[in-house]
Amino acid sequence: MERTKFILDEKEIPDHWYNILPDLPEPLPPVLHPGTGEPVTPDDLAPLFPMALIMQEFSPERYIEIPEEIREVYQLWRPTTLFRAHRLEKALDTPARIFYKYEGTSPPGSHKPNTAVAQAYYNKMEGIERITTETGAGQWGSALAFGGACFGVEIKVYMVRISYDQKPYRRVMMETWGAKCVPSPSPDTKVGRDILADDPECTGSLGIAISEAVEEAVSRDDTHYSLGSVLNHVLLHQTVNGLETKKLMEKAGFYPDIIVGCVGGGSNFAGLFLPFVKDKIDGTRPDLRIINVEPFAAPSLTKGLYAYDFGDEAGLTPLLKMYTLGHGFIPAPIHAGGLRYHGMAPIICHLHKLGLVEARAEHQLGTFKAGITFARTEGIISAPETNHAIRATIDEALKCREEGVARTILLAHSGHGHVDMAAYDDYLAGKLHNYEYPAEKVKEALAHLPKVPGAEEKGEGR
Amino acid sequence: MERTKFILDEKEIPDHWYNILPDLPEPLPPVLHPGTGEPVTPDDLAPLFPMALIMQEFSPERYIEIPEEIREVYQLWRPTTLFRAHRLEKALDTPARIFYKYEGTSPPGSHKPNTAVAQAYYNKMEGIERITTETGAGQWGSALAFGGACFGVEIKVYMVRISYDQKPYRRVMMETWGAKCVPSPSPDTKVGRDILADDPECTGSLGIAISEAVEEAVSRDDTHYSLGSVLNHVLLHQTVNGLETKKLMEKAGFYPDIIVGCVGGGSNFAGLFLPFVKDKIDGTRPDLRIINVEPFAAPSLTKGLYAYDFGDEAGLTPLLKMYTLGHGFIPAPIHAGGLRYHGMAPIICHLHKLGLVEARAEHQLGTFKAGITFARTEGIISAPETNHAIRATIDEALKCREEGVARTILLAHSGHGHVDMAAYDDYLAGKLHNYEYPAEKVKEALAHLPKVPGAEEKGEGR
Repeated sequence: MERTKFILDEKEIPDHWYNILPDLPEPLPPVLHPGTGEPVTPDDLAPLFPMALIMQEFSPERYIEIPEEIREVYQLWRPTTLFRAHRLEKALDTPARIFYKYEGTSPPGSHKPNTAVAQAYYNKMEGIERITTETGAGQWGSALAFGGACFGVEIKVYMVRISYDQKPYRRVMMETWGAKCVPSPSPDTKVGRDILADDPECTGSLGIAISEAVEEAVSRDDTHYSLGSVLNHVLLHQTVNGLETKKLMEKAGFYPDIIVGCVGGGSNFAGLFLPFVKDKIDGTRPDLRIINVEPFAAPSLTKGLYAYDFGDEAGLTPLLKMYTLGHGFIPAPIHAGGLRYHGMAPIICHLHKLGLVEARAEHQLGTFKAGITFARTEGIISAPETNHAIRATIDEALKCREEGVARTILLAHSGHGHVDMAAYDDYLAGKLHNYEYPAEKVKEALAHLPKVPGAEEKGEGR
Repeated sequence: MERTKFILDEKEIPDHWYNILPDLPEPLPPVLHPGTGEPVTPDDLAPLFPMALIMQEFSPERYIEIPEEIREVYQLWRPTTLFRAHRLEKALDTPARIFYKYEGTSPPGSHKPNTAVAQAYYNKMEGIERITTETGAGQWGSALAFGGACFGVEIKVYMVRISYDQKPYRRVMMETWGAKCVPSPSPDTKVGRDILADDPECTGSLGIAISEAVEEAVSRDDTHYSLGSVLNHVLLHQTVNGLETKKLMEKAGFYPDIIVGCVGGGSNFAGLFLPFVKDKIDGTRPDLRIINVEPFAAPSLTKGLYAYDFGDEAGLTPLLKMYTLGHGFIPAPIHAGGLRYHGMAPIICHLHKLGLVEARAEHQLGTFKAGITFARTEGIISAPETNHAIRATIDEALKCREEGVARTILLAHSGHGHVDMAAYDDYLAGKLHNYEYPAEKVKEALAHLPKVPGAEEKGEGR
């Protein structure tokens, strides 16, 4: 039998995360204070995050040690397995070698706990007893609930009301791990009360949920806030996956020609590719291609503007330099809820600007079709987000067939879709459709980008 | 760090299944033809099963080779991991060493594909293009759908209508893997049409669904029938798990004092314990305790009668000697749908009769409470069925604390509960209750056990 699985012993869980910041060929544009236009300081962020995470956000160290307490929790599902997709290759009749690193065996079923566990730990170490966060469809909220359970930190999740009502499974997962989950807008915050006074039936948005979570965190000394993607420290924690993958590809005896992953905020894919992009930066692997796959409904990298914008829709965060569709842009209701984001992690955007990674956008129907092919060959029913990466993987493999070239393709498989079966149901019943790029809505949202104080004098901003 | 995980390389997937039949201290009572009272012959079963499976059902060989094609599919998730539950031990403050072997990483999320893949393969090898089966909540139907996808066999699943309507996720999984799933009773069979003519709103039962699946299999040359538990060949296929576990416990350096698992039809737990019970039979490990955990709502081993009965509620199967509550007994609607069975695998019943294994019954509320403890310590949200085994594991660990004895407890963890979150929702909302043993209903069902022709002369039967 040909080898299908490549595994590591638990002792081989990386003992450091990899920080790309010192290896970037040009420094990352700073995060700016929206009031002053100056780079934010650690103190600016202290009401929201523990100092350990703030230090990681700006760290010049290439490797940052993973505390033993975190590695002990990682052992519950890490290291994760690298698979060679022989059955998919055969079905596609392609000479390509397809590998996938699978993050779906974590307790919540995705890559998210790689950072959720770390964030809960660092907060606990600094005496924080409670963390608030927001969640859309619930993938992040459930991961943080799990992280909180691991270290005895109380988690409160503001969940967009329409998801809270329509997708109860993720809420129940949060509650099973002991978290409190409330529909947003809620009567628990001033922001929520004001909105409910105006519209008691408001179905909520991620922007409102962030505002509520931040308001509560800022107003209580025992409470911090947590974000599940976009920020540097989140990507840092996710590199545990890329470091494992690098070791495993060595075991498999191949170095990837192409790495493919889906991107919403970008943490899943960056976590896998950052240790590889290092090889491209230092010239060891100049031909490596890294393909970020986003949905046509929210194509920030392929259609957005590289500019300073808020990370959230409500405009409460510092300003991040990123490819953005405008923080006021609300993507169409595709089933890949984790990809419905107006911006993208600044690190990915910077690498894209520098030409070190590429991007493409995929339509919803094609991604589900690819997901079905994957399920019927490799067995795994994948999350709708992951199906975007599978679509691009299959397309690259078919190109190998056309060209008669045996490239090695590495797929970042971010999680299973067992809690997303309603989306598959709609697809199989022919109820799904594609969403074209909403040019007019984006134009309008981009007209409302925040002004960066003093930007024109400094030549910064857009 | 203390070791948490024990893993095997894919090359170490067992190349043979273990067949307990030749090692039993007394032979298993034969399966009887309900018309003649004589042991069934392979020919009797040929309309339903491929000859390879029929031969396995009666095989005198201790080890039966696993075909390479099946092992290739097993590689998609096997070997599965043995965990040491350090976090649970700590939470319970117990000196017990708790290990669990986790089957939830298979594509459908349970142990079921261990036999589903094998059954699809053997049918395909004998030219069978279609397989029918029944499913209650959908765990088995989805596993067979996956198995069918692996070998290009068409799968048709008759799903109890009330589950089809109320629990659509498993149906969608089946469809994602390409199976056809119809609500039972259906217009596709005579049995179904007759029932619908009488009651168009009939919500169905497992008995009706079996009747429909069998009727269709018998009436078409290209179609066989498949059963997901109870029969010897099903338990045989599941021993791949127990054989792995035995190797892994050796790696961990401990032999279990107690093995715990949940039982509905019995295939999950038998698959794990059969390679260990062998050591008890041959005297190597006389003190090993093997605890079958069943629900109070369907306590066949603890309250049933050891007698010949039909395997299905409708009375279509041959007669099996087992602890039974009567084939007409319909268990209360506990959330652990996979444990709602009136009988038990004849092999387990025989071992129980011989005093080689023991049994206990658990109430629903206590099992969910145990499941919550497990989720908050070990991370995994378990299937409601598995929670029965977790309840007994925790109780045994607490007994170790009371007695100050460090026993080694091995838990057969059959799968995750991501598709069962509605059950957790009900539990957390206080909507669940316990079901007492329904003595009167059982008494009535036992009054209608089938007569075994000629049994009195032979001294057989009850």
